[in-house]
Amino acid sequence: MTGIALMGAGRMGQVHAAAIVEAGARLAAIYDPVTAAAEGLAARTGARVASTAAEAMGDAAADAIVIATSSDTHVDLVLEAVKTGKPVLCEKPLASSYAAARKCVAAIGETAARRVFLGFNRRYDHGHASVRQAVHGGAVGRLEQLIITSRDPFPPPLDYVPRSGGLFRDMMIHDFDMARAITRQDFVSVTAHGSSIIDPEIGRLGDIDTAAVTLVAADGTIVTIHNSRRCAFGFDQRLEAFGSTGMVISDNPRQSGFQRFTNENPGTQAPILEFFMERYGPSYAAEIRLFLDCAREGRDMPVNAIDGLMAAYLAEAATASRKQGKTIELTGPDQEFANV
Amino acid sequence: MTGIALMGAGRMGQVHAAAIVEAGARLAAIYDPVTAAAEGLAARTGARVASTAAEAMGDAAADAIVIATSSDTHVDLVLEAVKTGKPVLCEKPLASSYAAARKCVAAIGETAARRVFLGFNRRYDHGHASVRQAVHGGAVGRLEQLIITSRDPFPPPLDYVPRSGGLFRDMMIHDFDMARAITRQDFVSVTAHGSSIIDPEIGRLGDIDTAAVTLVAADGTIVTIHNSRRCAFGFDQRLEAFGSTGMVISDNPRQSGFQRFTNENPGTQAPILEFFMERYGPSYAAEIRLFLDCAREGRDMPVNAIDGLMAAYLAEAATASRKQGKTIELTGPDQEFANV
Amino acid sequence: MTGIALMGAGRMGQVHAAAIVEAGARLAAIYDPVTAAAEGLAARTGARVASTAAEAMGDAAADAIVIATSSDTHVDLVLEAVKTGKPVLCEKPLASSYAAARKCVAAIGETAARRVFLGFNRRYDHGHASVRQAVHGGAVGRLEQLIITSRDPFPPPLDYVPRSGGLFRDMMIHDFDMARAITRQDFVSVTAHGSSIIDPEIGRLGDIDTAAVTLVAADGTIVTIHNSRRCAFGFDQRLEAFGSTGMVISDNPRQSGFQRFTNENPGTQAPILEFFMERYGPSYAAEIRLFLDCAREGRDMPVNAIDGLMAAYLAEAATASRKQGKTIELTGPDQEFANV
Amino acid sequence: MTGIALMGAGRMGQVHAAAIVEAGARLAAIYDPVTAAAEGLAARTGARVASTAAEAMGDAAADAIVIATSSDTHVDLVLEAVKTGKPVLCEKPLASSYAAARKCVAAIGETAARRVFLGFNRRYDHGHASVRQAVHGGAVGRLEQLIITSRDPFPPPLDYVPRSGGLFRDMMIHDFDMARAITRQDFVSVTAHGSSIIDPEIGRLGDIDTAAVTLVAADGTIVTIHNSRRCAFGFDQRLEAFGSTGMVISDNPRQSGFQRFTNENPGTQAPILEFFMERYGPSYAAEIRLFLDCAREGRDMPVNAIDGLMAAYLAEAATASRKQGKTIELTGPDQEFANV
Repeated sequence: MTGIALMGAGRMGQVHAAAIVEAGARLAAIYDPVTAAAEGLAARTGARVASTAAEAMGDAAADAIVIATSSDTHVDLVLEAVKTGKPVLCEKPLASSYAAARKCVAAIGETAARRVFLGFNRRYDHGHASVRQAVHGGAVGRLEQLIITSRDPFPPPLDYVPRSGGLFRDMMIHDFDMARAITRQDFVSVTAHGSSIIDPEIGRLGDIDTAAVTLVAADGTIVTIHNSRRCAFGFDQRLEAFGSTGMVISDNPRQSGFQRFTNENPGTQAPILEFFMERYGPSYAAEIRLFLDCAREGRDMPVNAIDGLMAAYLAEAATASRKQGKTIELTGPDQEFANV
Repeated sequence: MTGIALMGAGRMGQVHAAAIVEAGARLAAIYDPVTAAAEGLAARTGARVASTAAEAMGDAAADAIVIATSSDTHVDLVLEAVKTGKPVLCEKPLASSYAAARKCVAAIGETAARRVFLGFNRRYDHGHASVRQAVHGGAVGRLEQLIITSRDPFPPPLDYVPRSGGLFRDMMIHDFDMARAITRQDFVSVTAHGSSIIDPEIGRLGDIDTAAVTLVAADGTIVTIHNSRRCAFGFDQRLEAFGSTGMVISDNPRQSGFQRFTNENPGTQAPILEFFMERYGPSYAAEIRLFLDCAREGRDMPVNAIDGLMAAYLAEAATASRKQGKTIELTGPDQEFANV
Repeated sequence: MTGIALMGAGRMGQVHAAAIVEAGARLAAIYDPVTAAAEGLAARTGARVASTAAEAMGDAAADAIVIATSSDTHVDLVLEAVKTGKPVLCEKPLASSYAAARKCVAAIGETAARRVFLGFNRRYDHGHASVRQAVHGGAVGRLEQLIITSRDPFPPPLDYVPRSGGLFRDMMIHDFDMARAITRQDFVSVTAHGSSIIDPEIGRLGDIDTAAVTLVAADGTIVTIHNSRRCAFGFDQRLEAFGSTGMVISDNPRQSGFQRFTNENPGTQAPILEFFMERYGPSYAAEIRLFLDCAREGRDMPVNAIDGLMAAYLAEAATASRKQGKTIELTGPDQEFANV
Repeated sequence: MTGIALMGAGRMGQVHAAAIVEAGARLAAIYDPVTAAAEGLAARTGARVASTAAEAMGDAAADAIVIATSSDTHVDLVLEAVKTGKPVLCEKPLASSYAAARKCVAAIGETAARRVFLGFNRRYDHGHASVRQAVHGGAVGRLEQLIITSRDPFPPPLDYVPRSGGLFRDMMIHDFDMARAITRQDFVSVTAHGSSIIDPEIGRLGDIDTAAVTLVAADGTIVTIHNSRRCAFGFDQRLEAFGSTGMVISDNPRQSGFQRFTNENPGTQAPILEFFMERYGPSYAAEIRLFLDCAREGRDMPVNAIDGLMAAYLAEAATASRKQGKTIELTGPDQEFANV
């Protein structure tokens, strides 16, 4: 049974802890700067509490490392974890800025970066994964248009906005990764538009709450991403992949097959799933299972720190595009856009 | 261009007149006991007004005859029409009672009966016809269960109830024909249940407003028919055919692809089509086109007076089943159930 | 934390064990005639293995009892469990025959019977429960028609058929309970039809594989139940409740919101959930939570041995109806139908 | 009965002729440079054939004028028609270029321009009109995002491409009008991206076959338009309007409510409507009825030549944006973007 050293016993730490147990692995050691949190989780799982991250990572019973602490600690912990030579899963984002992500990858080198699993959990959502597999399997022929919709049920607290890095880095990061995962293309340009029409206060803090981004791939495929920080009817998470021989869609799943027909509402359906744990809960379990499989086999991680860097690069470029009011030509992280 | 003699210039007469013109045929002569009605329709279509049914039917420009008068006149007009040797379409029902339908078929003989097209228009509804074709084409393998739902938006006027012949003869007649059309089986038993829970007054008049009928076919296929005289959300007309390799459904089409998502109603759809001219309007046009094709080719009619007789037979048996509170074994019109 | 004594460590025992842990209760003691099964489950949950059912039930750490052994042992274990005075949950069916169920309820008395929770888990399915709540809350006005569809993906092994009690007792038992739960009515008649068209061998063994049953309630509400032992597209489990002001439906939920549009298949959807653990898995967890709540509060069980008896009564009457080829008038278990 | 002078007896002329008769008006006079076409249509409708457009327009029995000739003749015929003082309906587009549209409006003046009904028929599509009315009625609160999808079943003949004016003027013109109709906003910028990935030959001819355009409105509303010249599964015409309190959608209507469930395809639906006469046929009839109402009441036309000019303006700006590879700031036709 694979033993795991878990960094972080907060909300995401607990999500991963449950997924680890469900996947048949066990928690060997837990570290959290808030000792009480670590102890609480340890009591429920039989793990031991380590007093430093390094101690937890070095635990002899820990065969792999999962990092689920706050975003600003990811880079340091990844650097520490890589030193152990053990397989590592790091929650998204890799770093709280693109510059930090570049430094991190540069520091550990590309080979090690490909051994760090990056937690873009939406890739494992049942519907979204079906779209990706269908596209890669040729179900739509040659892919021509990809439309990604991500809308949160409600905006984050206002005091979070200034330290979020902005909508493109904080929220659309998932969609940039999804665009890469489905198209398997390099993008040649990004054009971003945004408004703060949900809450003007968000605008005064320099951010936006509504956005549309267009990515053009090297082969002409056009990707459009729609984001909104607030959605009245739940957690709106959809994909549409259109190609030469058809289209595949990942629509919002519903809580049940309940429907109601009345004179006024001839066909009301059950609510869509409400927020990320309801919609994406099963995707965390699938993610851990994939990580454990790769760890056991000593493989490169299929989704790794390089993917984290690339998503951060697109987020950075989108931020620049909106600020400069123009299309940004993309040349890759090495010859990156100037003056962002 | 085929010329038509039309009996009846009332609501159904006008429906058929429009379908005739749309199908590229023309109205040659019209007869209606209410002369003004005939004249009004003639003015809009260029037909001549005949003073008797026989005169209209005998018009030299009339190549075929359509009977769309009130139900109680159908038998007499069919007898008259058959004498001309011209192709005849008679609106459903063939007769206002099973006894009268038997007499009619006996009088004209089976060969002539097969030349009288009977207007079971629902067979030509796009969705229902797709189910029938799918079943006959093997799309569900061996058919095992057929479920027919027919619910009207609102009950008929109370004064119509006593002369309607009862729900089974007046309303379920369509569904009996549909059961025959889809299964292409003889039925060995019918069991009918009914209630008057929509309007107790209907019960006091000796009729029911809610019914469920089970037909068992010779090969074991089970057909269930659900009828209701009132449906809050429109004209509920559905089929479900279940078999060894799958299921096909004809669901209610909607007025458009409009949907609305709010916090309270996350997925309201457009209303279903409201009543028979909205839902079944196109089926009358398809019916006339089929009749004209058969007439031109001098073929037997694919749906004819024998089908009208058989549907009346099932309606009669269902009426008996409910009154006697027991399953009626069916032996066919020739050795029919006793004491209905 | 509530401690549970669990009878049975087979498939259903394991389902309940997982639900018990998930609900925050703990397994105190396990009994299974197959000791290895009990030991395996105990190792994973920290429960102790008892050498007799009575010993497990009497365990001081066991506050409540869950019976999940094979059907033929239910009555004896319920009698044993009731003696302890602890709250009891018994998997459905209460007994393997109606006669046995009557004897069981007679032996423990009605008051105790109402303290035995009966595991009709489908009542807690999200979609089905939404229909029940909608109907009881008046969402369809006065209920007039209820249509229940239950189709298994594939028939049971042929050697199971003779000891199953027949389709009505083995499979439709769930639907009889659902009919009672939604209508909250006494039924005045049952009429059953059945065929063995999926596998003639089932017919030779005296059973059927395809069935339609009509129940008429005292107030005129008509319930129709459709069962099939084989369904090509999965586990077809639906409800339709039609009333004076509208209709509510519990349709089959799907594995995801995936859809595919091609020229040949313009709108293929994701598969429906495949079998009972996929579809009804969450309902077992909800059932255990409800049982634990009732146990803690010392309440009568909302679904109890009386409900188990009534469902068995309807199954018995349906079996009689089909064998005798006639409608059975229902007078209740006390003045039961003769000569079944 | 309103009499109509119809310019053009080709495909669109015949569509309008049928709509005119169905709406209870009559064809008084027809002009078509191809006399045989005019005569054929006249024979079926009782209209007289005029030898010049002016003669037809001046016919004493003609109360209103409908222009349905080829696009390059629209401006001249509008100028001619306006002289008669009779109400005019002109098929879209108003002119074959933005410059010509400006000249036309300048020549007749704004007041007269508002009396020329412009045939943006999609506004009257049942589903699309429902979205517009819902948005205007407040059903989604404050509109924040509008997504318009228009995909044709197959590309036009290659020889049409060079004279089409390009995808933005020829195809997306409808969507620009729809964006204006639903948002009722002025736009401050347009950004267009396009590829020729369906047929590289289209690219060699200087055009594109796949496009995404983003319009930003003065109030921050973001509109995205997706166009494709080829769609494997039919005529893909959808709207999604997202706002502060919900979302409304106009999805593709289907040919019927037919569905098929098999092991491989558990939920195939009926095809979507195939091309514009099937999908938008009823919208032409609704358009003529609205035109006739406005004509009778002597009102300004709710959709008129100014709307035609504005749609042409957006198409021109989008063409410029794609060619220049940058966002175009919009200031209105009077201070228009330079160097397009």
